[in-house]
Amino acid sequence: MVGLDPVLEKLPPALRPRENTLAAGVAALETFCRGVLEIVAPHVPAVKINAGFFEALYGEGLAAYYRLVAHAHACGLLVIGDIKRGDIGSTAQLYARGHLDAPRYDEVDPATIPDAVTLAGYLGENAVRPFIDAAREHGRGVYILVRPSDPGADEVHEFGTGPRFYEHMADLVGRWGAGEGLIGERGLSCVGAVVAPKDTASTAALRARLPHTPLLVPGYGAQGATAESCRPCFRSDGSGAVINASRAVIYAFERPEYRQRHGDDWAACVGGACAVFAADVAGLLLPSS
Amino acid sequence: MVGLDPVLEKLPPALRPRENTLAAGVAALETFCRGVLEIVAPHVPAVKINAGFFEALYGEGLAAYYRLVAHAHACGLLVIGDIKRGDIGSTAQLYARGHLDAPRYDEVDPATIPDAVTLAGYLGENAVRPFIDAAREHGRGVYILVRPSDPGADEVHEFGTGPRFYEHMADLVGRWGAGEGLIGERGLSCVGAVVAPKDTASTAALRARLPHTPLLVPGYGAQGATAESCRPCFRSDGSGAVINASRAVIYAFERPEYRQRHGDDWAACVGGACAVFAADVAGLLLPSS
Repeated sequence: MVGLDPVLEKLPPALRPRENTLAAGVAALETFCRGVLEIVAPHVPAVKINAGFFEALYGEGLAAYYRLVAHAHACGLLVIGDIKRGDIGSTAQLYARGHLDAPRYDEVDPATIPDAVTLAGYLGENAVRPFIDAAREHGRGVYILVRPSDPGADEVHEFGTGPRFYEHMADLVGRWGAGEGLIGERGLSCVGAVVAPKDTASTAALRARLPHTPLLVPGYGAQGATAESCRPCFRSDGSGAVINASRAVIYAFERPEYRQRHGDDWAACVGGACAVFAADVAGLLLPSS
Repeated sequence: MVGLDPVLEKLPPALRPRENTLAAGVAALETFCRGVLEIVAPHVPAVKINAGFFEALYGEGLAAYYRLVAHAHACGLLVIGDIKRGDIGSTAQLYARGHLDAPRYDEVDPATIPDAVTLAGYLGENAVRPFIDAAREHGRGVYILVRPSDPGADEVHEFGTGPRFYEHMADLVGRWGAGEGLIGERGLSCVGAVVAPKDTASTAALRARLPHTPLLVPGYGAQGATAESCRPCFRSDGSGAVINASRAVIYAFERPEYRQRHGDDWAACVGGACAVFAADVAGLLLPSS
């Protein structure tokens, strides 16, 4: 899976806005992202679009996020909306309505709604329940934060001397995902977890702790994870995890190894990096003999 | 402080949309909220606008959130944007750009940016640092979740037998808010905490644990907190806390005691409930002799 984390100042020079207006900024982000979606679609089954990078441009930016979800669907991609929302139950109902439920208005294209979203479950089950209900009803999914990739998260998650807080969150996510009608025929729930790979032992322990939970695995590339470090995230049959690369792919035009080969052709750099990434992850699924 | 948590189905019948279109939905929410802002402005110093209720209507809804922040400012109110965002550092920078920083575009009215936002700090300091930097630079603030009001949050926050997780979060928030240039002349930081009142002892203990931290106190009214239960949130000089009422005020037209007096005049009901709420909280600050 490729993650779209677009920042105006980091776009290929040819795509940067010519004038400092909100409309030009939104248009530039959208042009770049539409291009990236078309380039990566032959290589990966899914993309993750992070709403934060669009909210930097206010409501107009969030509107572009929804249009890009639809464009990704038109490219044949599954889409994870990386929104990390988490609020008390009465508010979560409304967030779910806008981010995962079927639209209630004819003029809202159902393709603008992603197939899954990321959530923060730190306010408890009520904060995620409306999303889980929508996922079950519409054949969609959620990924709840269990072990985030930001190294600074350790000061929150590794406190005290007893059981680790992320293990506690893992147990809650496993429980929330075991409800009636949530586990499909392949033994995986529509309630997944975001689990950054760290040392092999702790990652394997989380995988074992969450036998029915699909994992969204961030951190490949720019954040230091390798395909090999992601290996323990898969179940023994090779299912159960999706590996995300964001900056390592979408900003490949800044990397010397791709510039050398493709020059200023940013699209060729992104395509090349995506193919390498996809092959790297696919290699994990080959028999190791 | 009054919280705006508007839901289409709960609007006064006269304000509900006549047709099932997104534009009519956004317009109805906005008309109701503009009215509420004008009604409550004489009674309270601040409002909290929860982005989730607007995101239910996609990018168009979020655009209305920004317009309402500006309208609240025009009414002379301070505004807390209740966004509860929390993502890794590289993403948090972009969320901060859209939600707390000064706008970078001439056509974006600076009045659309709130004076403070709520945040989830569960991904660690990097997730909140860009917001804290923006708060310091622009004289704004943040309130980081420490003890949420949803009763379901206990299963997350009260695990293990050692120190409570919310105490750990409180210590982190206190530390993040003690940095250079963050504590003002009245001894309060621009880094605040969201602390729902529970039993007096635990609330007083949190207040003592966070001597320089302004508290945003949710839960009054619909969620069961009384003014009396909020008393330990204030410092001994009566400063350091802002009490929020949302549903108890904005849906007062559903409450028999106000309907009896004001009939179908929803605005009179909201104004009446707001005056009662403001007097109830102000009573806390009077000498108790």
